[in-house]
Amino acid sequence: MRIDVVTIFPEYLAPLDVSLVGKARARGLLDVRLHDLRAYTGDIHRTVDDTPCGGGPGMVMKPEPWTDALEDIAPPGADGPAPRLIVPTPSGRPFTQALAGELAEEPWLVFAPARYEGIDRRVFDEAGTRMRVDEVSIGDYVLAGGEVAVLVMVEAVARLLPGVLGNAESHRDDSFAPGAMDNLLEGPVYTKPAEWRGREVPEVLLSGHHGRIARWRRDEALRRTAAMRPELLARLAPGTLDKHDRKLLDELGFPVPEDRVEE
Amino acid sequence: MRIDVVTIFPEYLAPLDVSLVGKARARGLLDVRLHDLRAYTGDIHRTVDDTPCGGGPGMVMKPEPWTDALEDIAPPGADGPAPRLIVPTPSGRPFTQALAGELAEEPWLVFAPARYEGIDRRVFDEAGTRMRVDEVSIGDYVLAGGEVAVLVMVEAVARLLPGVLGNAESHRDDSFAPGAMDNLLEGPVYTKPAEWRGREVPEVLLSGHHGRIARWRRDEALRRTAAMRPELLARLAPGTLDKHDRKLLDELGFPVPEDRVEE
Repeated sequence: MRIDVVTIFPEYLAPLDVSLVGKARARGLLDVRLHDLRAYTGDIHRTVDDTPCGGGPGMVMKPEPWTDALEDIAPPGADGPAPRLIVPTPSGRPFTQALAGELAEEPWLVFAPARYEGIDRRVFDEAGTRMRVDEVSIGDYVLAGGEVAVLVMVEAVARLLPGVLGNAESHRDDSFAPGAMDNLLEGPVYTKPAEWRGREVPEVLLSGHHGRIARWRRDEALRRTAAMRPELLARLAPGTLDKHDRKLLDELGFPVPEDRVEE
Repeated sequence: MRIDVVTIFPEYLAPLDVSLVGKARARGLLDVRLHDLRAYTGDIHRTVDDTPCGGGPGMVMKPEPWTDALEDIAPPGADGPAPRLIVPTPSGRPFTQALAGELAEEPWLVFAPARYEGIDRRVFDEAGTRMRVDEVSIGDYVLAGGEVAVLVMVEAVARLLPGVLGNAESHRDDSFAPGAMDNLLEGPVYTKPAEWRGREVPEVLLSGHHGRIARWRRDEALRRTAAMRPELLARLAPGTLDKHDRKLLDELGFPVPEDRVEE
């Protein structure tokens, strides 16, 4: 997969050299290219922003440098498929694990992280004549710029690329991974020693009894989801809960309709 | 505000030297200290992980190095208030702008970003006897580790600290900022030139008529919210919509109950 990022803070993207993404790049699984937006300005001050039309606080990013950068990366009229353009913004659609999986299927992504009040809308109207434009939000909070959202999305996408994670199984139990324990949150984890500072690993985890361990983990996942994200319980698909789950959820104060229970 | 981060990838936190957070640190508004978890290991391999109790894929972070690091940062029995401990995890409670605001009131935060399948639960049981422990998720997706979530949270919190943003007004219209346009998503923004590549800035924004501009921006925010995040419309507080809003939302297919409309 190829990924291009246009930014006024290329140094902010340093984590793309580190850890999972850095290793994927070193192994040739991911081709990441950073572009300094200011290289596409024409004035001595390398200006990328101007006052908002209609007034108000803050500044808006000018259309020319962005479009020049995007057309340099993916020239209009070039052969081959156009990239998909991802614009991080709190007013975008939510980034989810499902969207990460969708983006991991793309051959080429371009990220356009904005600063200030955002990028002149006409940049995306213009880009949209040639490529798919997605405005995406990583969560309901306000950041200083889109760069950190790019780091989030690239990391979430990169770990889904073939060959990037060593052990294919390690996707399986992730909270929110498709097929993961029915989208329940994961419960607590433990490692050795069995006793540490007078605190013991739950006995069942040392029992070697796979059925009891799986049941305990599922109970903990149900408890955790009920405590942290009860709204997720309402989204469970019919037939994903067994009678034991139902009894536990009843005890926790989340009664489950009959049709959600596997017979 | 003081912030400590314990990690096996201190170099991943390089963005904390850049841009808004970097400037806040340089100006003494934010005291950020990074700690290498491996400095708290006792073996020649500097081991931080071991196999999960109960079996399964992946590795779990050992309790001793984490607790030694946390107790080095905030010694048990020390004078003064304990820090608040923030643990990024997809199974935590959602990070929101409201939580960012709450954390911005704290004098001292410690972040514990995990790698692998997570940190042995007993670390937090132990830490919880002395400090408040919050497990927090920045969104419903899976990352390679908690470091990028720390970058997200530190940036969202830092921009709320007094003196960090130059212009106090620039908080005001942020999507999700408390008091921002009733939590609607922001619509498009424009800057000069008024015409560019045959694409024009909407005429109203050039009119100088503040009332019409404000109305246009609100209409665009309602349209955008209806298109991208219709569930947010259902959360609007009673009395936050006027009759014009209601008419527009009706046209968009989102009829508004009477009690939500200001008389």
